[in-house]
Amino acid sequence: MPPVDTPGRAAGGPDAPRLIALDWGTTALRAFLLGAGGRVLDRRAAPRGLLQVPPGGFAAVLAEILGDWRRPGLPALAAGMVGSAQGWREVPYHRGPAGLADLAAGLLPVPEKGPEGEAVLRIVPGILLDGAPPEVMPEVMRGEETQVMGALALEPGLRAAARIVLPGTHSKWVAVRDGRITSFRTYMTGELFAVLRAHSILGRALAPSAQPAGAADEEEAWAAFDRGVDAARAGKAGLAPLLFSARTLVLAGALPAAASLDYLSGLLIGDELRAALPVGEPGIPLALIGDPALCRRYRRAFARLGLPGTHAGTPDGPREIAGATEAGLWHTALAAGLVAGPEETR
Amino acid sequence: MPPVDTPGRAAGGPDAPRLIALDWGTTALRAFLLGAGGRVLDRRAAPRGLLQVPPGGFAAVLAEILGDWRRPGLPALAAGMVGSAQGWREVPYHRGPAGLADLAAGLLPVPEKGPEGEAVLRIVPGILLDGAPPEVMPEVMRGEETQVMGALALEPGLRAAARIVLPGTHSKWVAVRDGRITSFRTYMTGELFAVLRAHSILGRALAPSAQPAGAADEEEAWAAFDRGVDAARAGKAGLAPLLFSARTLVLAGALPAAASLDYLSGLLIGDELRAALPVGEPGIPLALIGDPALCRRYRRAFARLGLPGTHAGTPDGPREIAGATEAGLWHTALAAGLVAGPEETR
Repeated sequence: MPPVDTPGRAAGGPDAPRLIALDWGTTALRAFLLGAGGRVLDRRAAPRGLLQVPPGGFAAVLAEILGDWRRPGLPALAAGMVGSAQGWREVPYHRGPAGLADLAAGLLPVPEKGPEGEAVLRIVPGILLDGAPPEVMPEVMRGEETQVMGALALEPGLRAAARIVLPGTHSKWVAVRDGRITSFRTYMTGELFAVLRAHSILGRALAPSAQPAGAADEEEAWAAFDRGVDAARAGKAGLAPLLFSARTLVLAGALPAAASLDYLSGLLIGDELRAALPVGEPGIPLALIGDPALCRRYRRAFARLGLPGTHAGTPDGPREIAGATEAGLWHTALAAGLVAGPEETR
Repeated sequence: MPPVDTPGRAAGGPDAPRLIALDWGTTALRAFLLGAGGRVLDRRAAPRGLLQVPPGGFAAVLAEILGDWRRPGLPALAAGMVGSAQGWREVPYHRGPAGLADLAAGLLPVPEKGPEGEAVLRIVPGILLDGAPPEVMPEVMRGEETQVMGALALEPGLRAAARIVLPGTHSKWVAVRDGRITSFRTYMTGELFAVLRAHSILGRALAPSAQPAGAADEEEAWAAFDRGVDAARAGKAGLAPLLFSARTLVLAGALPAAASLDYLSGLLIGDELRAALPVGEPGIPLALIGDPALCRRYRRAFARLGLPGTHAGTPDGPREIAGATEAGLWHTALAAGLVAGPEETR
């Protein structure tokens, strides 16, 4: 596609693009065209994550998605698994606690042929914490560090001390102090749910005459989800002795087969919360970043478990922060000098 | 195949077959030709579990496996998932604690055309315990009840009180009192390992240059297994916060990629043991029934966790009981009057 310039988007104009920001993960690519101050001028998304890109195909996929956004001199910055060994270029992890300056210092470029010559995409490093096994395990993230930096920019009240939860395939619980990520832990909740649904006995039809699993009506589905959360709360020994109950409750006639996957979802999310939330951290604000439908499940589980909304001023549960990804990419680009700050654009 | 009679196997002879005993599960079929006293005259096995039998194909598979074993009047008894809703005929669960008499009373026949006319296969019922959710979950078994009855026949010292562990796809921990199964719990350890290995990021190659996961040499593999057990022991919050360490230890350079699946195995088995073994049941003998290679892993984990071998007289760990399946089928057949007891065959 040839570049299409609208008058307001001319270079230097008030709507001039300043940064192409990319969230490029394992299963999806999201792209943002950002103007002055990080304002979102346009956005695109495609199911073109690492798993869907053929070997050597990253440049072609990027050209296809960005199309008319690209022009000479417009910087591009990406975060996520695109910087992993399975991605476009492996960007070494930043080892240890990290703030914005650490991420900016670790950017690595990918030389990439654009339609108008050589352009450069830079990739944000992930974070690796070595830990001290077996008590404290090593941890890694790629992409979430950028979202957390975005959240801290959008909500300065979180900078001093916060816990930021990013539900997903690999849920992250991130501890923040003084604007830096000091520690975090990963829960494979989303991936566990996906593989159990697709490949285990818990996802198979439980009886010949039963409705298919996952076909419950909304009220029934939420009731089953709540039961799963309750079971996780009652479980003294963690998930292992509980998983099979997603099947046995149905066989015992105590749970509709159609709602068994909602029960499993409640079980897994409830167990994550039970394991992740130490007793008594009432002063630390809690925030959520993620898919709104998934965040709704987490908020419901928080409430069900009787956990206080510890985010200052939000007694009804943790606060959701939208727009963290693009904000994080913008502020990382600012810290790296790829784009100009407010004082320079005024 | 036509029946082939050897002289010693003539009806009424000392080696005359008395029972065809079948262990017919989800992935495999094992068949035993039993003589007087339950002595094994012959055995066969085939990868013809429920998942490999086409709809309506149970009789044909059975005829193929049994072949020349079959003759008019020779009873056949099966235990396992063949009696489930997905099996040949659904045999209602026995609800509640169960002994041999309960199982014998619940046998259901499958009319089945043999090569010499109408023969009958009977199927042993499974057990369902309703529980009292969310504190005590419902539980089900099909097949293990027969193995436990066999173990109690082979080891009368276990009848008064015992804990019998059956590692596998769905590991069972069975409490026995006065010769009856009084309660049990299921751990999806084997299935969890299988789906995580085949379908999750934990089973994928961790770096382009790494050895494939699961290709460690034996010493390295056992060391990784032990580390997984240690991590499960150290884990205060169960499996959820630990699973991802099978990946991060490799990324941090602290575990060989080739040994990561052995580590995962140790993590899952260690967590099962940690969750299943309440503190302080020193007087109850503990026994294992299962695949010898898998039992070896469990015995190693028991030792690693510092758990006493509580089986009377075996301070070095739980005792493995071989031949429990065929013994259980024989004794169930005896209790049901399908075969004659010792006093009648003398």
